[in-house]
Amino acid sequence: MKITILGCFSATPHSNKNPTAQLLEMRGHHFLIDCGEGTQVQIRKAKAKFSEIKHIFISHLHGDHFFGLAGLISSFRLLGREAPLHVYGPKGIKEAITLLLKLGNSWTNYPLHFHELTATSSEVIFEDEKLWVKTIPLNHRVYTNGFLFVEKEKPRKLNPQAVEALEIDKSQYHNIKEGKDATNASGERISNKRLTLDPDPPKKYAYCSDTAYHPSIIPIIERATVLYHESTFLDSHIELAAKTKHSTAKQAASIAQQAHVGTLILGHYSSRYKNLEDFVTEASSVFKNVQLGEDGKVFSF
Amino acid sequence: MKITILGCFSATPHSNKNPTAQLLEMRGHHFLIDCGEGTQVQIRKAKAKFSEIKHIFISHLHGDHFFGLAGLISSFRLLGREAPLHVYGPKGIKEAITLLLKLGNSWTNYPLHFHELTATSSEVIFEDEKLWVKTIPLNHRVYTNGFLFVEKEKPRKLNPQAVEALEIDKSQYHNIKEGKDATNASGERISNKRLTLDPDPPKKYAYCSDTAYHPSIIPIIERATVLYHESTFLDSHIELAAKTKHSTAKQAASIAQQAHVGTLILGHYSSRYKNLEDFVTEASSVFKNVQLGEDGKVFSF
Repeated sequence: MKITILGCFSATPHSNKNPTAQLLEMRGHHFLIDCGEGTQVQIRKAKAKFSEIKHIFISHLHGDHFFGLAGLISSFRLLGREAPLHVYGPKGIKEAITLLLKLGNSWTNYPLHFHELTATSSEVIFEDEKLWVKTIPLNHRVYTNGFLFVEKEKPRKLNPQAVEALEIDKSQYHNIKEGKDATNASGERISNKRLTLDPDPPKKYAYCSDTAYHPSIIPIIERATVLYHESTFLDSHIELAAKTKHSTAKQAASIAQQAHVGTLILGHYSSRYKNLEDFVTEASSVFKNVQLGEDGKVFSF
Repeated sequence: MKITILGCFSATPHSNKNPTAQLLEMRGHHFLIDCGEGTQVQIRKAKAKFSEIKHIFISHLHGDHFFGLAGLISSFRLLGREAPLHVYGPKGIKEAITLLLKLGNSWTNYPLHFHELTATSSEVIFEDEKLWVKTIPLNHRVYTNGFLFVEKEKPRKLNPQAVEALEIDKSQYHNIKEGKDATNASGERISNKRLTLDPDPPKKYAYCSDTAYHPSIIPIIERATVLYHESTFLDSHIELAAKTKHSTAKQAASIAQQAHVGTLILGHYSSRYKNLEDFVTEASSVFKNVQLGEDGKVFSF
């Protein structure tokens, strides 16, 4: 699981402060989460391939989370894309993008599917054989969802020592990986469990931005491998956080601690702060494993 | 007159290739012309003040000319703008921007006036005591206008040698600048013409992007001080230029030559070309005074 922070600043973009967007690589998927202005340039800088992005998840319809979407969709067309694109986001997103493309008389020549979200409780919005994606209803000034990406149980792994020691012919490896038993050189049946190792435990990534401190999300994100939680403000602006329905670094850490997540990544910083390390300092007083999100940073888990 | 090229590349943005936007400073105005994605960051890089921009002119509704507008309008709000903003552009621009702001529940707290354009012949769309702005109907795949910015005749300038030689009291300078005659120390009346110099000739800036080769614009832009004319392609792609309703560098130069403009600035280059100097080489074979538009470049006239 690899998370590339394309942008993690709030509100107005600056040359070194990009609005929100992330790329999540999980089980062969390349999911784009949010798409602030300038995201397509950030994707290029990260040397990610446009063609690998097949699903885009938009948390809410504030500009710093989706004003880069129409441009990205247009660039896909200009680059000759043929593969379908799926966009998940609040109701209204289809009308907005459709209007922008229609005005330019430049509809896509690839299939563009909108999945508009309106539910106020968590729901599964994508599922395949490898993982599923659920919404995390957040508490912001407009209708907003976080997204939970959860790997499904992986198949057991071939144990290279065991298959060699037990003299299993290579022709059987494929079946073993699919969970079947095998036969050794003497014709003896060997159980699958003896030839395989436990799979890596399924990983979970919880993305929560933008939101006020909102403990109702805790049961949904419980024991996530990684939680990205917005921390627009430091403790000194806790009242402003409440008023604008954003969180402080300590509140993000409190959510991480109560939900027993593995790692907390902070982001969505207000540009009023000069020293981002202060976010880590404040959050670390509440929750131990804190990482500072920064534009261009890549996290692997 | 100062022209800052914020972006002069066509189609999809790259980190060092910004879509179209320009700042024109003329007689105290700071006009923004077109507003591709990332323009607000380019304005910051140019160290221009957001608050000085009161008029934005959008040529057409292709993304590379207006997908940065909603973000800029939103940033103005976040930065506490109170001054009115006037946006001139094709019909549909009001609906698009209004929808994007409405979806984010973030309408501006400053007056935002849209002036939607539909005329197919040149019309005056802005006028004050110092200058006027006219549309230049262009020939592109969607309804498109260039813009002609024309200074009005300036007042005659005080001649410092003459007022001293003729012993004119300083108290009369203001009236002289306003065109009035004066009286010398001996009570003799001195005509205004003897005390003043001819004003600088009024300047004209013609902005033409995007367009196919379109000689009908020549009478409108005749003798412009500066013409910015798109040159998406080199001569080797003249058929592609015709098909996509863009121009080659030579066609831009031909328009400049037929309209007897002072200087031609090229721009809107397709990103397929590695060496931009080729645009100057081709254009210079037709018209002498050619400048290469480049992101961040400033031209003063």
